[in-house]
Amino acid sequence: MNSGAQAAAMNFLNEVADEFPSAISFAAGRPTDRFFGRLNGAALLDAVARYERHARISCTQSKHGPNLLQYGRTAGIIGELVIEQLASDEGVHATPDRVIMTSGCQEALALCLPALCPDKRDVALTCNPTYIGFTCAAQAGGASVVALSNKVVSIADAIERAVRELRRIRRRPRALYLIPNFDNPTGRLLDERQRKDILDICRRERIVVLEDDAYGMFQYDGEPVASMSALDQSGCVIHLSTFSKTVAPAVRVGTLVLPESLFGDQDARKSLWKELVQRKSFITVNTSQITQAIVGGLLLQENRSLKEWIRPAVNWYRTNRDVMLDHLKRVFAPISTRTWWNRPAGGFFLVMKVPFRFDADSVTDCATKHGVVVMPMSFFAFDKSQDHRIRLAFTCVDPEQIRIGIEALGDFVASRMGKWGNCRQQATVV
Amino acid sequence: MNSGAQAAAMNFLNEVADEFPSAISFAAGRPTDRFFGRLNGAALLDAVARYERHARISCTQSKHGPNLLQYGRTAGIIGELVIEQLASDEGVHATPDRVIMTSGCQEALALCLPALCPDKRDVALTCNPTYIGFTCAAQAGGASVVALSNKVVSIADAIERAVRELRRIRRRPRALYLIPNFDNPTGRLLDERQRKDILDICRRERIVVLEDDAYGMFQYDGEPVASMSALDQSGCVIHLSTFSKTVAPAVRVGTLVLPESLFGDQDARKSLWKELVQRKSFITVNTSQITQAIVGGLLLQENRSLKEWIRPAVNWYRTNRDVMLDHLKRVFAPISTRTWWNRPAGGFFLVMKVPFRFDADSVTDCATKHGVVVMPMSFFAFDKSQDHRIRLAFTCVDPEQIRIGIEALGDFVASRMGKWGNCRQQATVV
Repeated sequence: MNSGAQAAAMNFLNEVADEFPSAISFAAGRPTDRFFGRLNGAALLDAVARYERHARISCTQSKHGPNLLQYGRTAGIIGELVIEQLASDEGVHATPDRVIMTSGCQEALALCLPALCPDKRDVALTCNPTYIGFTCAAQAGGASVVALSNKVVSIADAIERAVRELRRIRRRPRALYLIPNFDNPTGRLLDERQRKDILDICRRERIVVLEDDAYGMFQYDGEPVASMSALDQSGCVIHLSTFSKTVAPAVRVGTLVLPESLFGDQDARKSLWKELVQRKSFITVNTSQITQAIVGGLLLQENRSLKEWIRPAVNWYRTNRDVMLDHLKRVFAPISTRTWWNRPAGGFFLVMKVPFRFDADSVTDCATKHGVVVMPMSFFAFDKSQDHRIRLAFTCVDPEQIRIGIEALGDFVASRMGKWGNCRQQATVV
Repeated sequence: MNSGAQAAAMNFLNEVADEFPSAISFAAGRPTDRFFGRLNGAALLDAVARYERHARISCTQSKHGPNLLQYGRTAGIIGELVIEQLASDEGVHATPDRVIMTSGCQEALALCLPALCPDKRDVALTCNPTYIGFTCAAQAGGASVVALSNKVVSIADAIERAVRELRRIRRRPRALYLIPNFDNPTGRLLDERQRKDILDICRRERIVVLEDDAYGMFQYDGEPVASMSALDQSGCVIHLSTFSKTVAPAVRVGTLVLPESLFGDQDARKSLWKELVQRKSFITVNTSQITQAIVGGLLLQENRSLKEWIRPAVNWYRTNRDVMLDHLKRVFAPISTRTWWNRPAGGFFLVMKVPFRFDADSVTDCATKHGVVVMPMSFFAFDKSQDHRIRLAFTCVDPEQIRIGIEALGDFVASRMGKWGNCRQQATVV
C-alpha cells in the first residue's frame, strides 16, 4: 500500500457516504444516528451546564472553575472524569498525570507515532490488514510502518519474527499498533492468552503497544477480555479510546492513557507525557473545551459509566449483526463453498470473502448499479492477501436496509460470476 | 531558539495564567472573557439550531442536511458562510473549493508547513521575532525554519537577501510566514507598499506567503490596509484566520483559504487543496461539526459579518491599550531614556524595552514578588536581539488591573536597577 493509495482510501472511508448518497452503506464505520436524539440541543446544553457546575465545585485549576469558552489546559479538562469512566467501563486504571484528552483518537495516533519513532531506523509494527487511520497517521508523522506477517499462527510469533528480521537490517521496532477488541477491519477479538503473549514479547523487546480500544464496549456475545492495559505489568501499553462511538463522532474527543511507568521507568513516562502534550500544543493547541464539557456533563449524568448509555446501541448492533449473518447465509447459500464470512462477537464490522478481486472499481460498480456500498479489504492491506475480501459495517443501517443491501450485494456478486449468477437470477425471478 | 526552548515557551504561553493564578497577566494573547456572556448556553444552542435550519434548506450535501453529530466532510461544513464573512470583513475573496475549515489556525499551520516544505532542502522563512506557534508547527511537521534578518530595512529586502544566501547553500525557500496585521509579538502593521514589495519578491522567487490574519479585525486607529490575499495577483498567498479571537478560543475553528491558482497554475492549487485535506484527515479526521455549527449559526445571526459582534471588544481593547500607554508613560517617566515601547494601531500586544535582560527567571521573579506576568520577547526570537524586551498583552485585563500591573512592573524594573530603583521607591512612598 503506497502513501497515495493510503490517502485515497482514507478519503474514501471518510466521504464515501456522501459520494453515493442514495446507496445503502455498509462502508463507513459510523455509529448509528438512531439514538442521537438523546443529544439534541437541550441535552447538549444540559451536559455543558452540568459539567460547568461540577467544575466550579471541584476544579483545582482556579477559584472560578475553567472558563469553558477560553483557551485551556493542553492536556484537557475532563481527565479525572474520564479516568473514572475508563476504570468502570474498561478496567483501565490511570491517574490524571497520565491522561491526555485528544481531538479524537486520530490525533492521539498522530501524537504518539513521531514521539515513539523519532529516528529513521525506528519502526511501528501493525497487523495486516490494519486500520488505515493508523498508517495515515504514521505517514503524516514520518514514522515507518512494517506489517506483521499474517501467515504466522499468532501475533506474538509474528512480532518475534519481525523483530528478528528488522534487527538484521538495523531497524528498531519501537511500537505496535493493535485493536485487540473487535479489530477494524477484521472484527477479531484477541483472547487473554494471545494478549499476554504479545505483552511478553513487547516487554522483552521494549516495544510500546498502542492499544486502540474504540470498540471494546460494543460486545454482543461472550465475556469481555481484560484490556492489554489492564494486563500490562511492565509498563508497555498506551491505551487509546474515543467518544466517537459511545457519545458522538462530532465531539472529536479521544483519550490517551500512558502506563504508570515506561518499562519500569517512571521518569521516562513523565517525559513522554510532556512530549505528547507539547506536540499537541503544536498541532491543535487544545481540544475544544465546549465538546469536552459535553462529554464531561454526560459522564456526570451517567454516573461515570457509559454502559447504560450505549445499551440501546449495543442491542441494535447485535440485532443488525445477526440480521446480516442470516441474510448472508440465505443469499449466498448457492455459493457457500466459494464465499466465507466471520461472526464477530462485537464491534462494527464483519469480513466477507468473495470469489473475485474486489477493488475500487468494484465499489463504484456495486454502488451505482446495485445501490450498496462496501469497503474492499485491500484498502487496509499491505499485500494482495485481502484482494478477495470486503468489510461490511452493520452499525449505520437498519434491518430492512441490511436485507435489501445483502440482496443487492448478492446480485452484484452474481453479476460477476457466470454460472451461479444465472442460477441466482432465475431464482430471484421465481 | 532550539526546539526544547521553543516547546517550553509554547507551553509557557498556553499555561502561564494557570501557573500564577493570582497574578495580573499581560502574558497570554487571549480575547477578553468580558463579552462571553453573549455565548451562554442558550446562545450556543440558538446558534446550533439556526445553523441546522440553514443547512437543511441550503445543504447541497444530502437531502436531509448534515447530521451534525456524525463524522463529516474533512474540509468542513461552514465554508460557504465563512467565505461571505471573509469577503465582508477582510476583503478576502474565495470559492468553496479553496477553503478548509481547520481545528484552529494552529492546525492550518501544521497542515501547510510539511505540504509546502516536503524536502529536506526546503525552508520556511519568518520574521525575527515571530509567533512561536509557527516555529512549533514547523518543528512538528519537520519543516526547517530560517529567520529573516531584522537588521535590513524592509522585509522584502530581507527576503531577497535570505533567498540569495539560501540558494548559495542549496536550500530552497518555499514559504514565508507573516502576520501583516498587528503582528504577534511585535504589534507591527505593514503598509500597502511593504505588502506589495513582499508579494513581488515572493512571486519572483515562488515563495508561498502564509498570511496569518488573526488580528486584522482588531484595529483601533487609522484605515485598514488591504490583506496580502486581496493584493495578491499571482497566486502566492494562503490566507489563514481563526474564530478564536472573534468568537471564542474554545470553538477551535480556523479557516485556510488557498489562492485561485498557485503561481498561475490552477491544477497545482487543486492538488494542494487535496493534499491538505488528506493531511487533515490523518491528524484530526474533521473539525467538530458542533463547534462549526456554533460559528455558522453566529455568522447567520450576524448577517455574515462579525464587525458588529466584535465592536464592544474592539472598543474595550482600544481603551485598554490607551490606559496601558498612559500608565507606562507615567510609571516609567523617570527612566524614559532607558525604556521604550510601541503604540500598536491594533491587535493584542505592545512591545516594551527594559534596561536589562528579561529572561524566564525574570518572569517568575516578577510574577511571584510583584504579582504581574509578562512574556519575554526572547521566547519569540532566534537570537539575542530581543533579550531586553517584553511583550505586554492588554486584552485580557481591565483598566484597573492595567494600572496595578504596570505599577508592579515598574516596581520590578526598579528592583533590578540601582539608582532609579531607589529614587522610584522614594517617589512612591511620597
